[in-house]
Amino acid sequence: MTENTFQIGLVQHACIQDQAANIEQAINGIREAAGRGAQIICLQELFKAPYFCKAEAADRYNLAEPIPGPTLNTLQEIVRKLEIVLIVPLFERRASGVYHNSAAVLDADGSLLGVYRKMHIPDDPLYYEKYYFTPGDAVGPAGGFRIFRTRYATIGVLICWDQWYPEAARITALCGAEVLFYPTAIGWHPAEKASFGPQQVDAWRTVQRGHAVANGLYVASVNRIGIESEPGTDGLEFFGQSFICDPFGQILAEAPAEQPAVLTASCDRAYMEDVRRNWPFLRDRRIDAYSSITARSLEKREYE
Amino acid sequence: MTENTFQIGLVQHACIQDQAANIEQAINGIREAAGRGAQIICLQELFKAPYFCKAEAADRYNLAEPIPGPTLNTLQEIVRKLEIVLIVPLFERRASGVYHNSAAVLDADGSLLGVYRKMHIPDDPLYYEKYYFTPGDAVGPAGGFRIFRTRYATIGVLICWDQWYPEAARITALCGAEVLFYPTAIGWHPAEKASFGPQQVDAWRTVQRGHAVANGLYVASVNRIGIESEPGTDGLEFFGQSFICDPFGQILAEAPAEQPAVLTASCDRAYMEDVRRNWPFLRDRRIDAYSSITARSLEKREYE
Repeated sequence: MTENTFQIGLVQHACIQDQAANIEQAINGIREAAGRGAQIICLQELFKAPYFCKAEAADRYNLAEPIPGPTLNTLQEIVRKLEIVLIVPLFERRASGVYHNSAAVLDADGSLLGVYRKMHIPDDPLYYEKYYFTPGDAVGPAGGFRIFRTRYATIGVLICWDQWYPEAARITALCGAEVLFYPTAIGWHPAEKASFGPQQVDAWRTVQRGHAVANGLYVASVNRIGIESEPGTDGLEFFGQSFICDPFGQILAEAPAEQPAVLTASCDRAYMEDVRRNWPFLRDRRIDAYSSITARSLEKREYE
Repeated sequence: MTENTFQIGLVQHACIQDQAANIEQAINGIREAAGRGAQIICLQELFKAPYFCKAEAADRYNLAEPIPGPTLNTLQEIVRKLEIVLIVPLFERRASGVYHNSAAVLDADGSLLGVYRKMHIPDDPLYYEKYYFTPGDAVGPAGGFRIFRTRYATIGVLICWDQWYPEAARITALCGAEVLFYPTAIGWHPAEKASFGPQQVDAWRTVQRGHAVANGLYVASVNRIGIESEPGTDGLEFFGQSFICDPFGQILAEAPAEQPAVLTASCDRAYMEDVRRNWPFLRDRRIDAYSSITARSLEKREYE
């Protein structure tokens, strides 16, 4: 291992009602990843519990915790021991009535480097996230997006629905991210799986691999597995298939759809530099011509 | 065919020194596509000649022509007869010393709807485009990007290197494009083909399919074929593999790497609407948070 490389890891698992058991499972995955050499490890979106957004229920706000808080305290110990960087997605209670879908980043000494709060919040049948989460509002030169300068690499963290937005990937890349981590909870509606399941996974993978190519960086996306029920509905089947791809969009590691998995891969800064020299997209961006990307729509209506 | 569908076509071929023969070949492809029902047909980037940017040579400016000009005059006749919309990529002589890599759009009555001038200009070994082409500079609400309201559909046209830029796809989509057409001339350096050829094609296809997914629209990309020599170099092998994909990124039609081909596909507005309703990415864009996308880099240097 040279200083030009660093190792990353992802932990894919199912989530049950017993939160302590989910944390235990994540810790086992962290140990396995670290044992294989991973230096920066990312857990799944809201890894501590079943995906509670399948219904709107006020008592589920009880799942939230402050940052720092008990889960981070538990994980900080293992982080210090293993000297790993850890991305910990949490349901964050920022203030009474203000909750976020967040990811805390612990540096290898256990210190809290900071928090990314999900910027794009979905709201679709069984993904009622707008009920639970207020969108990220960080103020800074990158407008809510950010990087974390960890001991081993400079990383960006975006969460699930963010992965469909090229703007989020681009801005985080421009900040200097070498890897984009996407903690995720995406699944099939059981009634749609047969007809659309493979296409949905393919679209999900493709758009993220596209971010890797367009920005010349590594992408690591970690998704949960398992069928989670919700009374009065068919529930959701989370489709796993976590993956890591290189700055050319090539898959380096990929998990199955129905099994827990720990993925690891090596990231090479010399290779990233090589890709960006040979396909120098960042050189030719038309920054003079992109300002209309902040429009909601550019379709002019007569009454406007 | 209902009013909710329209048919598109692409013409992939090799280019030789004889420009009249290239135009003839394109016309044959147009006839074939129209015969199969295509209503909007797109030719390859700079389809009239070998890819002359393989070297910097002042006499190659002679290949440029004004818009309107002789090639458009020839094609307008066939457009009127077949009642098709035609996208005609041309080396445009706009003024003495001002040349563009352009695409003219002819509506189905033969009228010139307008011109898109390539916004992102590459410059790499054997792709010396910055020597020949000044970048597009159109002024308007979309800053150089635009749509064309044709008889059959509202389309966007972007050219080759543009395809690596999510900003270009997004802004054109926000203008109301139902299809993004990408006339292209991309190939392998023969020395790289064995090692990197398949990955290069995969990255090229992936980033464009990603635009389709992120924006919920059709993408149609047409590339030339053929090995083109250039004295003192190994030349370029253009890799064809033109394709059309749907708003979910699924491939509808795809051409081989070494054979001429005419691709056609049906585009369905009801399906596009359905995709955008079920994965409503455009609803949740954080337009309050994207303004830093106009930065060249967001990496802060100490001396800045």
